[in-house]
Amino acid sequence: MSEFELIRHHFSRIGGRRADVALGVGDDCALLRVPQGYELAVSIDTLVAGVHFFPDCDPEGLGHKSLAVGLSDLAAVGAEPAWATLALTLPDADATWLDAFSRGFARLAGRHGVALVGGDMTRGPLTITVQVQGLVPTATAILRRGARPGDLICVSGTLGDAGLALRLLDAGESVSEFLRGRLERPTPRVELGLVLRGIATAMIDLSDGLAADLDHILTASGVGAELRLPDLPLSRAVGNRLAADPDWGLPLAAGDDYELCFCVPERKCARIMALAERLGIRIQVVGRVRPEAGLRCLPEGGSSWDPGQSGYDHFPDAG
Amino acid sequence: MSEFELIRHHFSRIGGRRADVALGVGDDCALLRVPQGYELAVSIDTLVAGVHFFPDCDPEGLGHKSLAVGLSDLAAVGAEPAWATLALTLPDADATWLDAFSRGFARLAGRHGVALVGGDMTRGPLTITVQVQGLVPTATAILRRGARPGDLICVSGTLGDAGLALRLLDAGESVSEFLRGRLERPTPRVELGLVLRGIATAMIDLSDGLAADLDHILTASGVGAELRLPDLPLSRAVGNRLAADPDWGLPLAAGDDYELCFCVPERKCARIMALAERLGIRIQVVGRVRPEAGLRCLPEGGSSWDPGQSGYDHFPDAG
Repeated sequence: MSEFELIRHHFSRIGGRRADVALGVGDDCALLRVPQGYELAVSIDTLVAGVHFFPDCDPEGLGHKSLAVGLSDLAAVGAEPAWATLALTLPDADATWLDAFSRGFARLAGRHGVALVGGDMTRGPLTITVQVQGLVPTATAILRRGARPGDLICVSGTLGDAGLALRLLDAGESVSEFLRGRLERPTPRVELGLVLRGIATAMIDLSDGLAADLDHILTASGVGAELRLPDLPLSRAVGNRLAADPDWGLPLAAGDDYELCFCVPERKCARIMALAERLGIRIQVVGRVRPEAGLRCLPEGGSSWDPGQSGYDHFPDAG
Repeated sequence: MSEFELIRHHFSRIGGRRADVALGVGDDCALLRVPQGYELAVSIDTLVAGVHFFPDCDPEGLGHKSLAVGLSDLAAVGAEPAWATLALTLPDADATWLDAFSRGFARLAGRHGVALVGGDMTRGPLTITVQVQGLVPTATAILRRGARPGDLICVSGTLGDAGLALRLLDAGESVSEFLRGRLERPTPRVELGLVLRGIATAMIDLSDGLAADLDHILTASGVGAELRLPDLPLSRAVGNRLAADPDWGLPLAAGDDYELCFCVPERKCARIMALAERLGIRIQVVGRVRPEAGLRCLPEGGSSWDPGQSGYDHFPDAG
């Protein structure tokens, strides 16, 4: 098969047909129809072998993850996924690898009704760039800049699982199926993002770790926050690890969880908990927005960790 | 400067403001507004160091070219450029390199009113992926599949200049400013693409060489064609080269020219020539669409070159 045939074979029918795709893969451009009253939400992300993933990692998981990180960005603004494009740079056109990669990509695309509408395949060091396009009713997207003092800070799922998996893999230790799944096949919280429109005041997805990502919300909103460390939602694996070695960097600063962090007025909290329960997603209140700039982490025992420091800086809690 | 600050510094204001950008760089997604009655045209392309360009090439030219290849795809369907996203993978965040790269990108973006609305910067082997988004009135895009027997085949500009520049550089020979410019700073024929809406029956941009790219039109349209080699538009540099060494692969099979190839009913030819003259773009009729499949090249002297062969296959012209 020629390279063109390979592309067509593996990628031309991913995600099935959508009525809003006037023209899909195979011409100079794809042609897409955005319904009236909607804005187009777009995000582009690159995964590089040896930087974002192990070069010999499971290609099916990689296909999943390369789309999942983009869908997570759409979730973070409350957009409904619609179309994706894929720029794939490969050292060689390995049919087995492409088959597994496209299967992982296609399965996640199918789950969210995403059509792959264009792509580029080039020879070179293994690098994957995906752009996702989603739709959101005009002026309803949830931005980073809307957090207000007094808002509760919530996160979905559990924190630090992907980071723990990575540490174990780096150390050559065994990794449970649960932890490996959290690292290699993160679940973009698309449905949660959609139901939070009109409720959450600010939102971001957790790709760089809670401390850094929450800080983006705080900076964009001109506010500060305090986090209660004992309230961080942890899986049993991460909880056990922290009990043995209280390294809060794991849930706070390890990335790749792709959960959502959002702010919400306190009076809307019960409504959110009900919505989350219906979706089967755990939501945890982990802190509160404060008017004073900066992020303060309140541990048990009343001291605080300053995530701006390279290490842990324990000092008496003034709050 | 941190990496985030570098990105913001170099890329946040490329191409200026557009009223249809509800939210630009800096959140999880950009938010864009597609006007009613328009379709969104999208195309994604990757340039890899050592494959598509010399790793030590002029970064300003590279910034230009990485956007130009996408704009050329928009031109090929007759779409008006609107927004771009940039995924840049770099071995290191070299401020001098980034400054030059972003200058080249920004200048071309500004010329076409394109806003850079999102991006991703990662560490790794030098790889550049750009997705362009353009707008075209619903159902007016020019596709590859519309060519009809009898249509004239036209190309803009001259053919083989980028290919000759590359051969000279590969051989360590000196390259004129003209040829270097054709290779490193191709001109996407955006204005020409726009005026051809409603006139051209099929169009493609020349990234892989006339023979291969025209073949995409022929295959998509279910037709064939004959090309008259003496009519291929050549610069003086390529003309001189061909006079010394009649290697028709240069104008036919060397890529990277980013000119447009399009088909047009003969009765509309005069109108197109007038439009092209107004735009200051040379248009040349190089052949005609035929009902029989296949592409036949008619040289002077009445023999034909079969581009499906690896070499040149001279045999008596049956046409």
